[in-house]
Amino acid sequence: MRKVAVLGSTGSIGTQTLDVVSREPDGYEVVGLAAGSNAELLLEQARKFRPRLVSVASRELAESIRPRLPEGTKLVYGEEGLIEVAAGAGADYVVCALVGSLGLTSTLAAIEAGSAIGLANKESLVTAGHLVMKKAADKGVPILPIDSEHSAIFQCLNGENRKSIKRLLITASGGSFRDRTRDQLENVTVEDALKHPNWSMGAKITIDSATMVNKGLEVIEAHWLFGLPYDRIDVLLHPESIVHSMVEFEDTSVMAQLGNPDMRVPIQYALTYPERRPSPATPLDLAKAGTLHFREMDFVRYPCLRMAYEAGRAGGTATTAFNAANEAAVARFLRGEIPFLAIESTIERVLAKHSPVRTPDLTAILETDAWARREAAAVK
Amino acid sequence: MRKVAVLGSTGSIGTQTLDVVSREPDGYEVVGLAAGSNAELLLEQARKFRPRLVSVASRELAESIRPRLPEGTKLVYGEEGLIEVAAGAGADYVVCALVGSLGLTSTLAAIEAGSAIGLANKESLVTAGHLVMKKAADKGVPILPIDSEHSAIFQCLNGENRKSIKRLLITASGGSFRDRTRDQLENVTVEDALKHPNWSMGAKITIDSATMVNKGLEVIEAHWLFGLPYDRIDVLLHPESIVHSMVEFEDTSVMAQLGNPDMRVPIQYALTYPERRPSPATPLDLAKAGTLHFREMDFVRYPCLRMAYEAGRAGGTATTAFNAANEAAVARFLRGEIPFLAIESTIERVLAKHSPVRTPDLTAILETDAWARREAAAVK
Repeated sequence: MRKVAVLGSTGSIGTQTLDVVSREPDGYEVVGLAAGSNAELLLEQARKFRPRLVSVASRELAESIRPRLPEGTKLVYGEEGLIEVAAGAGADYVVCALVGSLGLTSTLAAIEAGSAIGLANKESLVTAGHLVMKKAADKGVPILPIDSEHSAIFQCLNGENRKSIKRLLITASGGSFRDRTRDQLENVTVEDALKHPNWSMGAKITIDSATMVNKGLEVIEAHWLFGLPYDRIDVLLHPESIVHSMVEFEDTSVMAQLGNPDMRVPIQYALTYPERRPSPATPLDLAKAGTLHFREMDFVRYPCLRMAYEAGRAGGTATTAFNAANEAAVARFLRGEIPFLAIESTIERVLAKHSPVRTPDLTAILETDAWARREAAAVK
Repeated sequence: MRKVAVLGSTGSIGTQTLDVVSREPDGYEVVGLAAGSNAELLLEQARKFRPRLVSVASRELAESIRPRLPEGTKLVYGEEGLIEVAAGAGADYVVCALVGSLGLTSTLAAIEAGSAIGLANKESLVTAGHLVMKKAADKGVPILPIDSEHSAIFQCLNGENRKSIKRLLITASGGSFRDRTRDQLENVTVEDALKHPNWSMGAKITIDSATMVNKGLEVIEAHWLFGLPYDRIDVLLHPESIVHSMVEFEDTSVMAQLGNPDMRVPIQYALTYPERRPSPATPLDLAKAGTLHFREMDFVRYPCLRMAYEAGRAGGTATTAFNAANEAAVARFLRGEIPFLAIESTIERVLAKHSPVRTPDLTAILETDAWARREAAAVK
C-alpha cells in the first residue's frame, strides 16, 4: 500500500488526486494533506481519509477547524506546517500540487525526505529545475509528471532509450482566444478569457493558456524533466487537445499519447507508473472526434511563448523572472487593473530589466521572484 | 554484428530490408538471400553483400546465374534450397518476406533453427498462427512484426504491461476505392484498383487494400501476435495513413505511432528493437499534414473485412480458406477473368462451403489452402 501525501489537497489537482486514490482504497493510504485557506474542504477530506497530518495556511484557520478534526489527525499550519506534511508525514509518495513558490520549498523538502514525487507544481521546475532535478538524482527519487503534456511525453518514452529522442512535440490548444487576431485581443474581458475551449481549470492557468504563457512554462519544465535543449522542444497548435503531446525519435517514428481531456488520467499514471489501472475517464472515440488539426506555432501571435523560450535559453533566474512577472501581471488583469495585452508587455519589460544569475541558489531564486513581482506590479 | 538472412530478398520488403542493412555496414552481415524468379537482381545482391548462401526458385534459374556468383557464395534452389537459407545459413535473424505458403514453411524452419524472426509474411500467422506462435514460444524466439500497423502496435506496447491493453486500433486508409460507393465498384478496372493513395506496394497487396482483405489479414495477424480476442481488435478508417495504428489501455490512454508511409521504418525497428537508429525516411511534419481524419469502419461497404473477422472467430482452417480463396480470386481479377466485386463473392462462396478443422497441423493447413484455391478458381 502506497503512503501518499497531497500538497494542495483542496485545489483542482489535489481533489482529483484524492478522487483517483479513493477509487483504490486498498492501493493507497493518505498520510498527509496540506491545504491553504479552504479549511472546510480540508476538514471534509481529513474525515474521509483520516491522515496522520494535515496543514492549513494560518494559525487562525487551524484553530477554526481543530475541534472538528477526526481523532488521530495532527494539525499543523503555516509554511512550517506545510513542510512537515511534505517531509514528516511518513509518505513514500508526495503529490506536489501547490501553486506558487511555496510549492518549490515543499517539493524540495519532500525530495530531501526521499519520497517519490508526483509533480504538478510548475514553479519547482520553472524557477529551480537545476536544484530539483539534481536533488532528485542525488536522492534517487523519481519525479513523475502530472501535467497532461508531460505525462504524455513520459508515456511516449516508456521502454525507449532517451538517447534516441529527436525532439519533443508539445501540443497547445491555443486557449480561449485562439481564433482571434491580435487586434481583436485589445479589449477582451476577464470573463472572455476564462472560457477555455477544452479543459476546465483554475483562473490563473486559463489566462496562461490564452496568453500561451502556460505552454511556455511547459516547455521550460520539459527541458528540465527530459533533459533536452530548447531547440529540440517544439510546440504545435492542436485545437482539439486530444493528442496530449508527442515524441519524435531518430528513426522518424513519432509516438503520441491521446485521450479525452481528464486530469485524472495523468494523475493516476503518475501514481501507478509503470502499471496502468482502470480509470473513470471517458474512453476516447476517435471516429466521433472525426478530425484532428495541427498547425505551426505562431510566435508573433503568441509573444509570451517566444519570451519563454528566450528566458529558458538565457537560463538561471531568467525563467523565475518570466514566471513571477506573469503571475503578478495575471493577478492585475484578473483584478481589472490592466488590459489583456498588458500581461505580455509587462513580462517583456520585466525581462528586459532583469540580469539573470546563472546558477542561482534558493535565496537568489526567491529574491528574483520577489523582485520581478514588484517590478510587474509597478509597470504602468 | 547481426547475421541476417532475407527470404524474399528481391521483393519490395526484401529490397528495402537490404537498403536498411546496407546503411549500417558495421551492424549487419548478410549471410543468406532467398529469391524466387528474379535471378538477375539476386545476383546483384549477392555481389554486393557476399552472403554464404543464396537460393532461387528452380534448378534452371540457378544454372543461369551460377557462373556469375561471387566466390564463397553457395547456390541452392527450390523449396529445399529456400529452407536451407532459412535454417542453414548461420543467421541469428531471419527476415521472412516471402509471399504465399512457401513463406510459412520457411518461417517455421527459421524458428526451428532458433533465429529471431522479422515477420512480413502474412501466411505464417494467418494460416498457422497457432503453430508459429507456439514454436516461437517453445524455442524462445522473438517474432518482430514488419508490417507498419503491427510495428506501430508493437511500438505502442514498448515498456507496457500487456495485461493493461483494452483494445488494439488498427488504422485503414480505405484503399484506392475509398471514396466510391459499392455501386461505383461494379465496373472498376485493374488499372484503377492498382492506384493506392498512400503506399507504393505490389499488385496483390494493393488490390487487398481496396477490398479491405489486407486489413482483415492484419486483424488476424494481430490476434496471434498480441494474443487478443477479436472483439478487442478494432479497425478505424484513417485516410491519411499517418497514424499507423494505436493501442488503448485500461486507463483510457491511447498510444499511437505516427510517421510518413515508409516501410524502411518498421523494417529497421524490427531489426534494431529495442533500440532505434537514424533512418533515411522523411520526418513527419504534422503541421504540414494539417488534418487527420478518422471514421468508423463500415462492414457493409467492406464485406471482406466482416468475413475476415468471421473466419478469425471460426478459427482453425477458416482463415486459411479465407486467405487462399482471396489469393486465387485476386489472381483471376488481375488476369481480367472476373470483375472486382467477384473477389468478395468468391471468398464468400468458398467460406460457405468450408468446414474448418479446429487445430490443424501443417498438412491440414496446406490441404485447405489447395482446396480453397481450387474452389475459388472454379467459381463462375
